[in-house]
Amino acid sequence: MQKALEYVDENLDTFIEDLKSICSIPSISVQDEGINECVIRIKEILEESGLNVKVLELEGANPLIYGEYKPENYSKTIIFYNHYDVQPADPLELWTSPPFEPSIRDGKIFARGVADNKGNIIARVKAVESILKTAGDLPAAVKFVFEGEEEVGGVSLPKYIDKYKELFEADIGVWESGDRHENGRPSVKLGYKGLAFFEFFVKKADRDVHSGRAGLVPNPVWRLVEFLSSLRDEKGKILIEGFYDDIKITKEDEELLKQIPFDDEETKEEYGLTEFAGKFEGFEALKSLYLKPTCNIDGIKSGYIGEGTKTIVPSEALVKVDFRLFPGQTPEKLLENLHKHIEKYGFSDIEVKYHYGYESAKTPPSSFAVDIIRDATRKTYGIEPLIYPISVGSSPIYNFINKLGIPTVSTGAEYWGSLVHSPNENIRIEDFRLALKNIVNIIDELSKH
Amino acid sequence: MQKALEYVDENLDTFIEDLKSICSIPSISVQDEGINECVIRIKEILEESGLNVKVLELEGANPLIYGEYKPENYSKTIIFYNHYDVQPADPLELWTSPPFEPSIRDGKIFARGVADNKGNIIARVKAVESILKTAGDLPAAVKFVFEGEEEVGGVSLPKYIDKYKELFEADIGVWESGDRHENGRPSVKLGYKGLAFFEFFVKKADRDVHSGRAGLVPNPVWRLVEFLSSLRDEKGKILIEGFYDDIKITKEDEELLKQIPFDDEETKEEYGLTEFAGKFEGFEALKSLYLKPTCNIDGIKSGYIGEGTKTIVPSEALVKVDFRLFPGQTPEKLLENLHKHIEKYGFSDIEVKYHYGYESAKTPPSSFAVDIIRDATRKTYGIEPLIYPISVGSSPIYNFINKLGIPTVSTGAEYWGSLVHSPNENIRIEDFRLALKNIVNIIDELSKH
Repeated sequence: MQKALEYVDENLDTFIEDLKSICSIPSISVQDEGINECVIRIKEILEESGLNVKVLELEGANPLIYGEYKPENYSKTIIFYNHYDVQPADPLELWTSPPFEPSIRDGKIFARGVADNKGNIIARVKAVESILKTAGDLPAAVKFVFEGEEEVGGVSLPKYIDKYKELFEADIGVWESGDRHENGRPSVKLGYKGLAFFEFFVKKADRDVHSGRAGLVPNPVWRLVEFLSSLRDEKGKILIEGFYDDIKITKEDEELLKQIPFDDEETKEEYGLTEFAGKFEGFEALKSLYLKPTCNIDGIKSGYIGEGTKTIVPSEALVKVDFRLFPGQTPEKLLENLHKHIEKYGFSDIEVKYHYGYESAKTPPSSFAVDIIRDATRKTYGIEPLIYPISVGSSPIYNFINKLGIPTVSTGAEYWGSLVHSPNENIRIEDFRLALKNIVNIIDELSKH
Repeated sequence: MQKALEYVDENLDTFIEDLKSICSIPSISVQDEGINECVIRIKEILEESGLNVKVLELEGANPLIYGEYKPENYSKTIIFYNHYDVQPADPLELWTSPPFEPSIRDGKIFARGVADNKGNIIARVKAVESILKTAGDLPAAVKFVFEGEEEVGGVSLPKYIDKYKELFEADIGVWESGDRHENGRPSVKLGYKGLAFFEFFVKKADRDVHSGRAGLVPNPVWRLVEFLSSLRDEKGKILIEGFYDDIKITKEDEELLKQIPFDDEETKEEYGLTEFAGKFEGFEALKSLYLKPTCNIDGIKSGYIGEGTKTIVPSEALVKVDFRLFPGQTPEKLLENLHKHIEKYGFSDIEVKYHYGYESAKTPPSSFAVDIIRDATRKTYGIEPLIYPISVGSSPIYNFINKLGIPTVSTGAEYWGSLVHSPNENIRIEDFRLALKNIVNIIDELSKH
């Protein structure tokens, strides 16, 4: 594999150009923009790298790009999951360079989607190219699955899996992402939290009314305040009956988490905070971050929000809320409990819109997939990886782990300052280079297993 | 006074032309438009009607038009307060005829400002002209004060009063407005609620953060929810310590309110409601509307409020809140209590911005001013007026009642369908005619007192 690793170094600039070319396409799934253009460009890149490509389509779904290479002889198959869609880029005014004009500064590449998740698309495809171009073949079969709806709930992935099940069969899965800790150690995540995204809407009067009538005309924001207060206490504990019933947190999870370095003051500084949510400190704060479900307000809107003053009782109010779930919990069960909560506490005037959800899923620390990634990562980075029992985020990984039964781990080109989903999203070129090499080493380790 | 009343009928068309001429000038104070043009035209009208006019000016303030007539012999002086500025006319597309091209249809005059408050300016000036032209003199002294900043908070009125105090001295005041109930009875209001307008702002992280970190990064909306919940209970009762301490609601207020017709179902239908704020019904709902202070949310904003989903912990959150106050309460005292509340409950992370406020002010039902307006109104309309202990709105009237000590009441040319501050603002010509006659009768009653 030495030649493949050298190929990575020699061709890094070309790989970066490929990355910039796909980051220039604003493939924002929530706004249904640039999807086809992005698919065409990624298909080209896969083909140039020597892979067989199919663009799968389903009615009403964004295309799924499937790439594969099957050597003459192989015993193991590895499947890589990524997504080519990105989050919206607003607020635009906070970007130093335009989000869809990739810009290199201080050894970093800035663009919406460069960290989440286009950097890893290029790193993985070009790692395979590096082996193919230098060895003429691969020591294991590889499959790529690049979907286009991760940022809007990934609702089509299970449908693609149902229809093209044999294409998804593999011995080990590598999920989309992984970042480097400030101490230089690369992270490996063994699972993701579940997610359920809701909108709650209240309408009272049929128009905004002069606020002199506030004693008579009900205010929909007050109603949301009452409803939201019923969902969660000040420590973040969720008050919906049955919410914690099926949760599975193991002793092993907590033991793994204890290995994760965590410095309260540095972390507060990173986010510009004076205290953490729920006022937790130390390991309790880390547990709150990783091993507890959350109920979060993503946005709220009602009434007059311009400059200065306007005295009205607004007609309607809207709040967007997401729940992060832990293994054992499902969005379906939450929705059921939420409806019971609404009935029990008389909130039938709150309209519930359930947008989408993910199950939670975890690969056990004892899986052979964890050995492979640990060994490869140690070789690539010369340092022990940080193995997280679960990621703070959510993803359609449950389709691989729960539905297909593939032990799946994650690794990637991001770092602690990648500003995923935020203005000035970026990756470091050095991390991109090592992420490429790590994929080469993972394929190598797999072939020896 | 019979001749003066006949003069009103004979000259009504001319008066309407004068009204149309001032409604053609878009004197929108918030946009600083047409102010001087409007002042010049109103000054002309006052002079044509036989009054002495001064245009008072203060640095940075819109001019205040002062008109007066002092007969040889008189014992009482009446002062009329109005404002010549108007609200913006948008949304323009909802007007049937252009807002600044007064149009007569179905016995109504349509124009921005015709109800609020230019109809009353003309009615009052022309009522005085009608007496002067038919009797050659007035039986009481009259003063007119027409300011130009009522729609932007009336901040200059107290400054004019401080500088020209003697010009404002009077025995009785008549405030800007009054409308006719659907049952035909004219309304008289004995006071206005106070007002205090605040913004509350919370900033947590220095940027929006991926909501997977909701267990660690505090959410400013949750913080606002906690803060807002501490201010008010579900029935609308305000929980700030000391809030109700100085409030003056009398048995007389409640007795007056009992005379006001109120139909639950009709009122709900008017606003498209299924229930009232606090779930009050009947007289309890009417009391909640008139005789209770309120804490109202005018607008709230945080995070992602576009279409679809975005999973973030927002960095900051803003809410606009107004309090309506009752006599005895002041914005200054509220601000003081609010700061104590914030300290007591540990909400020091909530930034408080106090925008502006009005005191509340009421003329007691036992005042001679109430007798005069009751007698005059009964004579003019042939029906008993509806006397409201207080209006639902707020106004600079406290300058007259609290600062100058003038018992002040209100009456006017509007009706329940005048659409004040809305498209298609209008008054009925018949109400305009009666409003003129009512001013004649008020001056007559005053001279007999």
